[in-house]
Amino acid sequence: MTAQTPTTQAPALQAPILQAPILLTGFVPFDGDTDNPSWDAVRRLDGALIADNDGAEHRIVARCLPVAFGQCLVELNEAIDSLRPALVLCVGQAGGRSQLSLERIAINLDDARIADNCGAQPIDEPVVADGPAAYFTDLPIKAMLAALRAAGIPAEVSQTAGTYVCNHLFYGLMHALRGRDGVRGGFIHIPYAPAQAARHAGAPSLAIDTVVQGLRVALETALTTQVDRRIAGGAEH
Amino acid sequence: MTAQTPTTQAPALQAPILQAPILLTGFVPFDGDTDNPSWDAVRRLDGALIADNDGAEHRIVARCLPVAFGQCLVELNEAIDSLRPALVLCVGQAGGRSQLSLERIAINLDDARIADNCGAQPIDEPVVADGPAAYFTDLPIKAMLAALRAAGIPAEVSQTAGTYVCNHLFYGLMHALRGRDGVRGGFIHIPYAPAQAARHAGAPSLAIDTVVQGLRVALETALTTQVDRRIAGGAEH
Amino acid sequence: MTAQTPTTQAPALQAPILQAPILLTGFVPFDGDTDNPSWDAVRRLDGALIADNDGAEHRIVARCLPVAFGQCLVELNEAIDSLRPALVLCVGQAGGRSQLSLERIAINLDDARIADNCGAQPIDEPVVADGPAAYFTDLPIKAMLAALRAAGIPAEVSQTAGTYVCNHLFYGLMHALRGRDGVRGGFIHIPYAPAQAARHAGAPSLAIDTVVQGLRVALETALTTQVDRRIAGGAEH
Amino acid sequence: MTAQTPTTQAPALQAPILQAPILLTGFVPFDGDTDNPSWDAVRRLDGALIADNDGAEHRIVARCLPVAFGQCLVELNEAIDSLRPALVLCVGQAGGRSQLSLERIAINLDDARIADNCGAQPIDEPVVADGPAAYFTDLPIKAMLAALRAAGIPAEVSQTAGTYVCNHLFYGLMHALRGRDGVRGGFIHIPYAPAQAARHAGAPSLAIDTVVQGLRVALETALTTQVDRRIAGGAEH
Repeated sequence: MTAQTPTTQAPALQAPILQAPILLTGFVPFDGDTDNPSWDAVRRLDGALIADNDGAEHRIVARCLPVAFGQCLVELNEAIDSLRPALVLCVGQAGGRSQLSLERIAINLDDARIADNCGAQPIDEPVVADGPAAYFTDLPIKAMLAALRAAGIPAEVSQTAGTYVCNHLFYGLMHALRGRDGVRGGFIHIPYAPAQAARHAGAPSLAIDTVVQGLRVALETALTTQVDRRIAGGAEH
Repeated sequence: MTAQTPTTQAPALQAPILQAPILLTGFVPFDGDTDNPSWDAVRRLDGALIADNDGAEHRIVARCLPVAFGQCLVELNEAIDSLRPALVLCVGQAGGRSQLSLERIAINLDDARIADNCGAQPIDEPVVADGPAAYFTDLPIKAMLAALRAAGIPAEVSQTAGTYVCNHLFYGLMHALRGRDGVRGGFIHIPYAPAQAARHAGAPSLAIDTVVQGLRVALETALTTQVDRRIAGGAEH
Repeated sequence: MTAQTPTTQAPALQAPILQAPILLTGFVPFDGDTDNPSWDAVRRLDGALIADNDGAEHRIVARCLPVAFGQCLVELNEAIDSLRPALVLCVGQAGGRSQLSLERIAINLDDARIADNCGAQPIDEPVVADGPAAYFTDLPIKAMLAALRAAGIPAEVSQTAGTYVCNHLFYGLMHALRGRDGVRGGFIHIPYAPAQAARHAGAPSLAIDTVVQGLRVALETALTTQVDRRIAGGAEH
Repeated sequence: MTAQTPTTQAPALQAPILQAPILLTGFVPFDGDTDNPSWDAVRRLDGALIADNDGAEHRIVARCLPVAFGQCLVELNEAIDSLRPALVLCVGQAGGRSQLSLERIAINLDDARIADNCGAQPIDEPVVADGPAAYFTDLPIKAMLAALRAAGIPAEVSQTAGTYVCNHLFYGLMHALRGRDGVRGGFIHIPYAPAQAARHAGAPSLAIDTVVQGLRVALETALTTQVDRRIAGGAEH
């Protein structure tokens, strides 16, 4: 009879389960280069969805960080605080390497062979005064290694992220995540893009397409692996 | 009306100017591998058209050759005899190299560290008995180098094509072309594809897309360059 | 005259000041090799004297350790306990490196690509359960680097000692030295000897004579340098 | 009788069998370096005797050549003309290589990335106008390779001597020796000396002592080997 019938009600929407996002960072160019493949790859994944074991999807939020000691961490920490991500993966360029390098450990040391984009060149200073000597990543890098190789993406485990801004960011990330439950962090170094290698005679490269595909595989594996695999990934020296 | 009227004639077509084709060769897999990026790249250019300085177009004919001393040359020579190409470019895999390698010289020597696909492993035998010690390519490799780098493709001039089937084919090609006017020949070595590098730990790679793009640039430059550029491309040793 | 005269007394000897020794260790051969240049070099310094800033001399005691997780540390700790050295420098082979590598950091991780001499192949296990993630060496590696280069010895700072027995020993050493005053520790990786490189095609090498000379320079610098130099020795990645 | 009696003659000495000498050349420093290990090694063999299969001994005559296109060949040819050697071995520095490199082939091409010591920087010019494309060495490089490795000296066969002054000299040598019976020629590239490598970060090196020992082994093998061995020494690319 009346207009108050429920038929005019909007159908009860299944409330969307908002999953914590994935924070994925790249860097701006440095050392006189005009491109940084880390940002060129990362930006292409901005907004992409990665499913976890429950089928829930996590949205990737891509951020570009400055190649600057200190400031890169300020911006990373702001992003973590505002996004409250489930997972943080930072990506950086490693000119001269030929594969995706899954970094195992970040060390509490800045030792810069070249100045950063702001002119800073710290030598043998800690990233965090009184911080521990190092942090291991808590991403399942062995499972990620196996998944990348199975997908035909050249990959390796690396025992050093260097002593420049990449390691600085990686150490600061792991330091920020200590004691925070439910968020994990890691770092992947990537080779030059082909166009960069064309200017750096003899250097190996990897196409941005391949890097993007690899980062997606890495994130999917990280989200869906609770206990890492036990496969050798070390080095005699 | 009768059927003999000229109105049913097709309009007089401008007779197509048939240009001599470009013969582009790759190799089958070898040494236990399941892919050979040379053929994976070359096959994708089969039928493509490359313009010369007069605007005339040359069709690429792709052929896959066996990794077999002797037999690869039999099949190459048959293809040259039947196609009468304007240009022959042979492509082979160089696992461990990171760039497109424009080979400068083919030497009259087989010295095989591993057997070919037919089990042959010649050591210190000539490719052609009584042939000259070596042939230089007559492609404009310096112009090709500059064009590749300008296109963002990692490339280098190489002073040795090795002593295996690739050099064997390259030497045999240049020997076959001696004295033939109007046909030029050369050889390009390419890196592993990424999926291969994922199985050969640490090896550099180049995406097939990049190789295909590079081969096209190389062929265009070869067809349109009469006098090579004078830019350094050598090595101290 | 009487016997009470002091003239018949033996002259009071200046009691020799016994300086704490230097413990210098090498390894036995491993991975099927018949030599290990670390021991071949280290043994030649056994008994040599190194002066500190006060002109006091410290005797080098050389010890050969097994390439065995666990057992190498048992023997190292026994040597430290019995010798009470002022300085401990462990030396290991790094086949494929071309210079003396002054290791900066030891990490709390065993990840063995190949089994040790006793068949153990730990994967992703800590060296010391509940130990910190890493220890930095407390040797003045930048001053050592500068002194080595000035002496014409190829040298570099290394950011990773790997994840095999060398890193295991290095980590265990630094863990043992924590809290002990007046004793410092470090690790140097060395290349193959030339005769080994002759069997590992393409690998760089360093003559044992050069390594011995370098280890002496390194120890002299370590003993006489209280505050390390601030010179860049890092890596972008 | 006269004073011309033979009794005053010196006793008839067994006439020494004068063997043709061995000409061994090194180079002066170049490219801003203060040493060239090729001459540092070669000079130490000046006057040494090498026995052939008949037990006759050949004296080594060491010569130092300029790093100058053209002029190095003038001086080499003068030495050959005046000494009439049985064997000519030229030695040059190959910074970045880690082993003694037995060069297999010299090519008729100058392509200089850097200027020589006189400022000349030829690009894509022949060493000898109208000369053949290449010459193979006629030294038994496979037997030399085996002897060096058996002596514990790191060594390899190389398929390219580059396109700089070393290849220029090697090509000019083989061109000069064509048609001359009883004299053979070759070229060996050697790594940096350790003190040079200490200035070129990361470069491999070989001690001068090891190089001297290796050159002696190489010359002994060259003098006593008539037919080269058939062992693989090639490269896939």
